[in-house]
Amino acid sequence: MSVHTEDTIVALATAPGIAAISVIRLSGKEAIGITQKCFKGKDLLSQATHTLHFGTLHDNGRTIDEVLVALFREPNSFTKENAVEISCHGSPFIVKEIIKTLLKNGARLAEPGEFTKRAFFHGRFDLAQAEAVADLIHAETDNARQAALNQMRGGFSKEIDRLREELIHFASLIELELDFGEEDVEFAQRDDLRNLITRIRSVLRALIDSFDQGNVIKNGVPTVIAGKPNAGKSTLLNTLLNEERAIVSDIPGTTRDAIEDEIVLGGINFRFIDTAGLRETSDVIEAIGVERTRDRMKKASLIIYLFDLANTTLEEIDTQRRELAALGIPHINVGNKLDKADPLLLEKLKTEDFTFISAAAHTNVGVLKEKLLAKVQVREVKTGDVMVTNLRHYQNLLQTYDSLGRVLDGMSQGVTGDFLAMDIRQSLHYLGEITGAITTDDLLDNIFSKFCIGK
Amino acid sequence: MSVHTEDTIVALATAPGIAAISVIRLSGKEAIGITQKCFKGKDLLSQATHTLHFGTLHDNGRTIDEVLVALFREPNSFTKENAVEISCHGSPFIVKEIIKTLLKNGARLAEPGEFTKRAFFHGRFDLAQAEAVADLIHAETDNARQAALNQMRGGFSKEIDRLREELIHFASLIELELDFGEEDVEFAQRDDLRNLITRIRSVLRALIDSFDQGNVIKNGVPTVIAGKPNAGKSTLLNTLLNEERAIVSDIPGTTRDAIEDEIVLGGINFRFIDTAGLRETSDVIEAIGVERTRDRMKKASLIIYLFDLANTTLEEIDTQRRELAALGIPHINVGNKLDKADPLLLEKLKTEDFTFISAAAHTNVGVLKEKLLAKVQVREVKTGDVMVTNLRHYQNLLQTYDSLGRVLDGMSQGVTGDFLAMDIRQSLHYLGEITGAITTDDLLDNIFSKFCIGK
Repeated sequence: MSVHTEDTIVALATAPGIAAISVIRLSGKEAIGITQKCFKGKDLLSQATHTLHFGTLHDNGRTIDEVLVALFREPNSFTKENAVEISCHGSPFIVKEIIKTLLKNGARLAEPGEFTKRAFFHGRFDLAQAEAVADLIHAETDNARQAALNQMRGGFSKEIDRLREELIHFASLIELELDFGEEDVEFAQRDDLRNLITRIRSVLRALIDSFDQGNVIKNGVPTVIAGKPNAGKSTLLNTLLNEERAIVSDIPGTTRDAIEDEIVLGGINFRFIDTAGLRETSDVIEAIGVERTRDRMKKASLIIYLFDLANTTLEEIDTQRRELAALGIPHINVGNKLDKADPLLLEKLKTEDFTFISAAAHTNVGVLKEKLLAKVQVREVKTGDVMVTNLRHYQNLLQTYDSLGRVLDGMSQGVTGDFLAMDIRQSLHYLGEITGAITTDDLLDNIFSKFCIGK
Repeated sequence: MSVHTEDTIVALATAPGIAAISVIRLSGKEAIGITQKCFKGKDLLSQATHTLHFGTLHDNGRTIDEVLVALFREPNSFTKENAVEISCHGSPFIVKEIIKTLLKNGARLAEPGEFTKRAFFHGRFDLAQAEAVADLIHAETDNARQAALNQMRGGFSKEIDRLREELIHFASLIELELDFGEEDVEFAQRDDLRNLITRIRSVLRALIDSFDQGNVIKNGVPTVIAGKPNAGKSTLLNTLLNEERAIVSDIPGTTRDAIEDEIVLGGINFRFIDTAGLRETSDVIEAIGVERTRDRMKKASLIIYLFDLANTTLEEIDTQRRELAALGIPHINVGNKLDKADPLLLEKLKTEDFTFISAAAHTNVGVLKEKLLAKVQVREVKTGDVMVTNLRHYQNLLQTYDSLGRVLDGMSQGVTGDFLAMDIRQSLHYLGEITGAITTDDLLDNIFSKFCIGK
């Protein structure tokens, strides 16, 4: 594995843009020395860790900015290396000038995720915890934040390590048998082994099953509003989005204005997909059954089937519901335009699982929201909860589970220790990749390249 | 003047958005105490100024994030108050949660510029220096940055203070005469006074004149490319912008992608105005003389008159140049499509001040750039240079200059001391408003409301 921790890396650590302050981060052996070369103020090299120093940054005698320098001495930094955080005036131009000067003085630009990668290499945390750092930054709901924080603080990793230790113990017994292969010894009592593996698999199963919730918490619920033209789909979407917007607390700098078509209910993101057309005044999405609509709906985890209570026949509704049932995706049946509803139709639908709303008049929209949330059934994430939110972990857990299944099968078929050992090694490998006990360059590149620069 | 410095203010200080870290800033008596209420780690209240502390932030037992807290004890902070900077994970959601918790614990949201306003009230710097903080953040060229830094570090303020002191001395002599009004005494030797005021006015004049450059340095040069359809205006614009883009160093987070139609030459921003149409492939801007074009050109400080060397008559060129001369705005005459030029036309134009280029082939574009720069004639700003970049300062300097002019006039007309005193008081008022020696709520609101939140 190629690790270049000899050199000193630098990057902007705060979001780009004009602001009161920006923070430039350095890490590496020479982080303090390189900063000192451009700094006028106290002698940074003789200052203690975790101290702040006011001064000016210079390039060839030219003063670039007044700055505040935060010092961290190894191993007491995020990366466990010498590290410096320079708070400068929040101007992209000044940030550029400062970074250019630091580059001239011996630093190099950090790659995406390289600070976290170094923290990982120096043992600050394992791979699953490193991945949680990125999840934490991208958290958009309280549940997502809590799940990421729990993972970052090591709850999930501890669980995996525990499983791995038990497996290693098991493996060592099997491997011991192999050493005595000729003598036909069984160090490991087969029944105990079977029980151990069954128990490990049940823990794995619970983790695997938690991904359903974990995934919803991390990635939200892709939701589609489907229905015939004029059912009021665009009105409903706008009503939901506007109500959400109205309750968002208005703290500057914290509004998610880039993501437009989401609402957060009970800590869960409902992401309305393919609503580009819907958001216009015209109602462009076709009825269910049209090929394009079906394709779009297959990307959804939840469908709101919307129909016009004033202008739909019972037969139509039945047909549409059959189509929906055929898709096998959870859905909610919603009759719109309650104020203009056909009383006969309303009477017939009453006994079944329908929600009646008026999107335009905001009638019963709260009931609809409750039903959306009930369909997802995610409970609040508490400090310390262990849950799988990461697809990579989920896949590795599944592979571990399957490998251990083959061990069980092997034992019941009475195969020899060397065959069991193969599958056990395999399961140890899958489990080890989760926390980074086993890594490859490809795996690491794949993980850290998705981080932002400066993290 | 209403100053609420008893309460503790909070705001996001870094740019909004997802990033490695975000910094939340508090200032006020209770800044450390309020942070401590939500913090688990060391006891912040007993820690020294300029120290950093790792820990977790909590809301009712719920852990929000792992953070690094920077402590500043009064008067050793930017605001000269107790201050805290909380570095958290760079998630808008987490930032919101942390700020909400701090608000619950007794902080209030800061208004735009309120941190700087407090720094001003507590005497960290004067008003002109405070204004320079905002200029520094918005600097987009090295000259603009240096001019703002010089102003922030007090060069300009010192100059104004010096002038004000001399005037106050002068005023005191005049006022003394007024006290002895009945006795017809002249404490102030009229010739000495005249010399003093003339000297002060010449310093003021130099400052006023520096605004031509200062304004260009701070705000750039609004530039128009004018010419007939098919002269190649869009090609020239794209060539200039693309060449600029190619030489910009690519440090993540420092690219000015919001501002598209600017090029920086020799530290000066040339801002191409009304180029929305120009940037399309079709060449929509009409020839000079069309009403709409004239209006647009009046907003420019510099005009590039572009014509097609292959397809323009000498008469047309002369007509256009007359039109331009009538506008009275500096301009550069540029013949385009040099590679296809009509040799006869070229021969005739040779002796005059024309630049010949081929925008498509990038021929002589460098020469054009030099001519653009030469028209502006701005020299590099050095550390310590004093220059007026702020329109408010410029206007106050002009008013001071005029008031002192009236004093001179009054003296030569032999008016009495009380009349002179009125104009001197007026000039002291205008001068005092620049540095904030004299302020009003309106003036301060006007200045600080333009700052960003968190500054």
